[in-house]
Amino acid sequence: MDVSIIGGTGQEGFGLALRLAKAGNHVTIGSRSQEKGATAAEDVRRLVGGDAKVDGTTNQEAAAAEVVIVTVPFEGQAEIYRSIKDQVHAGAVVVDCTSPLATAVGGRAWHVVRPWHGSAAEQAKAILDPSVRIVGAFHTIPGESLRELERDLESDVLVCGTDKEAKAVAGGLIDQIPNLRWVDAGDLTQARITETLTALMISINRTYKIRDAAIRITGRASWGVPG
Amino acid sequence: MDVSIIGGTGQEGFGLALRLAKAGNHVTIGSRSQEKGATAAEDVRRLVGGDAKVDGTTNQEAAAAEVVIVTVPFEGQAEIYRSIKDQVHAGAVVVDCTSPLATAVGGRAWHVVRPWHGSAAEQAKAILDPSVRIVGAFHTIPGESLRELERDLESDVLVCGTDKEAKAVAGGLIDQIPNLRWVDAGDLTQARITETLTALMISINRTYKIRDAAIRITGRASWGVPG
Repeated sequence: MDVSIIGGTGQEGFGLALRLAKAGNHVTIGSRSQEKGATAAEDVRRLVGGDAKVDGTTNQEAAAAEVVIVTVPFEGQAEIYRSIKDQVHAGAVVVDCTSPLATAVGGRAWHVVRPWHGSAAEQAKAILDPSVRIVGAFHTIPGESLRELERDLESDVLVCGTDKEAKAVAGGLIDQIPNLRWVDAGDLTQARITETLTALMISINRTYKIRDAAIRITGRASWGVPG
Repeated sequence: MDVSIIGGTGQEGFGLALRLAKAGNHVTIGSRSQEKGATAAEDVRRLVGGDAKVDGTTNQEAAAAEVVIVTVPFEGQAEIYRSIKDQVHAGAVVVDCTSPLATAVGGRAWHVVRPWHGSAAEQAKAILDPSVRIVGAFHTIPGESLRELERDLESDVLVCGTDKEAKAVAGGLIDQIPNLRWVDAGDLTQARITETLTALMISINRTYKIRDAAIRITGRASWGVPG
């Protein structure tokens, strides 16, 4: 599958690029500068090895993929979306990974601020064309662990969104990453809850002096597409 | 240990009464009416069997214990706290289990409202004497599963609070319930996040047509008291 990662040089974006390239997808890393994107792509190719299909370019060029994953800090999120909105295809699946951590306003990483639209994902929706299908995901996956390719991730990805098919597309990518599962958390407004879990994981990390607290949902043997 | 449960005739309160009585604690069930409290206590004694030590009384009388667990719907929470505030001992540990579900205002159980103080637990703190040590807990534990005594719970309890000793007291009770673990989620303000997880679990239950979605925290072999 052709997947782009906007903000793909950051920790979480780079980790996702590694994992999705390793799974055999064609990954395009977007960055503010074409050069940085190209360098990150080279790094991914080297780390994944084999014939990993990875390109690097600007966020704007990367935004023209059928699946676009956006991993940027909350303080830059609205600006990034405005800068790519004309490139995102009608009907594209956009996976927003933003958590509105209070660090965006000089606060603590274990606190959150409340976006005007309810969640960062809904802020993205307000900026993009209404035909674009937004999904919120990956808020409880530790970025550092994503980067350690030889390490299995012990976590579930809570996926929320209003378009079921778009959730299944995002879920299909998640299923390609060893040991990750995805759980349909409901419609896009549930991002108001799932996005805050990043701060909760950071609070738990801080309390126990660890780095990769994450969550598993119990109550069912398997998750993925409901029904 | 002497434990009271305010709102102990509701599903979650009754389930906790069962579990904590079975573990050998002296449990006092508080209710709006003394009669209802006494009937619920009789039910717990019958279900637990043996020499279960369970009494039933009014919420006001029950509030004079060293550990007071409060399981009431959000719409009645402030009123209940105002009605027991003079009975709660200085320095007592109060475990608030309230989730600010939107059902309190005629909305949906998978949505939340935002309490003025940030969380229901902080609202409780604002009403009680400042010496009382508030802990938030049990928001991700399905009430129905608590009532099924023969069933092990597959879940972690996220505990937040500002007083570490109070968290350890609440954690000690949680550890008595088979298969439950407790995770220190940080200070009391983290209840702003943990309380919303009830709505998230309800959203997942609704999506998958199940009844007892819950969570486990990963990243560490054991939890409980940090360090």
